[in-house]
Amino acid sequence: MTEHSAIGIFDSGVWGLTVVRRIMERLPGERTVYLGDTARVPYGTKSPDTVVRYARACADILLDHGIKLMVVACNTASAFAIHVLQQELEIPVLGVIEPGAEVAVHKSRSGRIGVIGTAGTIRSGQYVEAIRNLEPKAQVFTKPCPLFVPLAEEGWTAGDVPRQVAESYLKELMEEQIDALVLGCTHYPLLKRVIGEVVGPDVALVDSAEATAAIVEQVLGGLGLLAPAEIKPEHRYLVSDDPDSFERIGRAFLGRPLSNVEWVDF
Amino acid sequence: MTEHSAIGIFDSGVWGLTVVRRIMERLPGERTVYLGDTARVPYGTKSPDTVVRYARACADILLDHGIKLMVVACNTASAFAIHVLQQELEIPVLGVIEPGAEVAVHKSRSGRIGVIGTAGTIRSGQYVEAIRNLEPKAQVFTKPCPLFVPLAEEGWTAGDVPRQVAESYLKELMEEQIDALVLGCTHYPLLKRVIGEVVGPDVALVDSAEATAAIVEQVLGGLGLLAPAEIKPEHRYLVSDDPDSFERIGRAFLGRPLSNVEWVDF
Repeated sequence: MTEHSAIGIFDSGVWGLTVVRRIMERLPGERTVYLGDTARVPYGTKSPDTVVRYARACADILLDHGIKLMVVACNTASAFAIHVLQQELEIPVLGVIEPGAEVAVHKSRSGRIGVIGTAGTIRSGQYVEAIRNLEPKAQVFTKPCPLFVPLAEEGWTAGDVPRQVAESYLKELMEEQIDALVLGCTHYPLLKRVIGEVVGPDVALVDSAEATAAIVEQVLGGLGLLAPAEIKPEHRYLVSDDPDSFERIGRAFLGRPLSNVEWVDF
Repeated sequence: MTEHSAIGIFDSGVWGLTVVRRIMERLPGERTVYLGDTARVPYGTKSPDTVVRYARACADILLDHGIKLMVVACNTASAFAIHVLQQELEIPVLGVIEPGAEVAVHKSRSGRIGVIGTAGTIRSGQYVEAIRNLEPKAQVFTKPCPLFVPLAEEGWTAGDVPRQVAESYLKELMEEQIDALVLGCTHYPLLKRVIGEVVGPDVALVDSAEATAAIVEQVLGGLGLLAPAEIKPEHRYLVSDDPDSFERIGRAFLGRPLSNVEWVDF
């Protein structure tokens, strides 16, 4: 494992590519290897034990690629499995929760912070813990928004239905007068516009993917493991369901075409 | 394998219990063993290859219990894997699609039949094929309704949001003047009321679970494999995610408490 090694990223499906995209934008010389567990997606509705089991399996496959740092791009897997992986692995392991929490604390002036995510992510309490660790006086209000995932997946991101769903989900948080809202699921940035309309311009929206890419750079820099400038580094993709459909759909998330998609047996 | 053997039923999750419930109501003397692949749920968004792979794994586990007949309670698995399982296994294998198609053909007077289901079920074309096999002159109109599953799972079954989602999904089918509509997913009967309001009283709604239980009785009867009257037959449950939460949630679908829930490793 050297500075030439790849950054490994895994997610329950295709949406973690939004994190890969931010990493590529910020660190264009880095090799990456991405694993999307598209056959067993989603993780957000599953029990902690099952999520930890699947996260360990994903980590094992990425480790076989000799990676120098691992990013758990899935909020649910970050919530349940990050500490397990950090203890068990010898390379640094970063989730998306601590980076999102850090940006939320920076952006909030009142210390009243909202967090939305899948049922699993919210139930884990990890965002609340991460925010309180950074700012013990912060008041954190949470709300699971399970219907946002299928809405985003269906591309149903404008019009009456997503607006009413968002109003229904966000009502309680708005009554708590939050001034920052963490979009604690890789899917939610696709609904950023409708969420922004419902919460209004005085609530800062926090996208964990951007925050995570910044931390990846800091950690690699701190360890002296940033890649020397390389032109066109290699990017590989591993998926547990159909590689062709991943290649087709992934393009939209990554903002560029992707190839080298291999199937892994889960 | 004798008439004392159990009926095996599998589904991608907990919702196949709606089929078990109908079987228990109709055949109260039969033993059952149910497998819910709750760790890898849902199947409706996955590729045919992955669904066939998972269906085979489910079938193998049920066969270890010496069952006399297998019911594939999941519409997506029925669509993609039923013919494979029917060829590979030595016991009868029934899906939910043919029974649903049969009832739809009976109930429709005009021969204009609507079918709704997951993206995978609709893409497979299996309902259209099954209906046309029974009634070549039938005109079948289909529409995937992916948001119905999370709405049902969230218990969001009344009010503006489900009504608007239903109106949006069913608009095209209503323009085709259907007079029967197959609810081609185990979740959809939970939205029966709102779907009924949108399509009106002149469209007959077809619930495949009921239709399937009737066919199970016919097939077992035909093979001389109906269980002799037994008081309190044994019912077993196998799941790939958390057994406790299955036991808690399953009660509502089954209409009675359930125990004997075991974990299987997928």
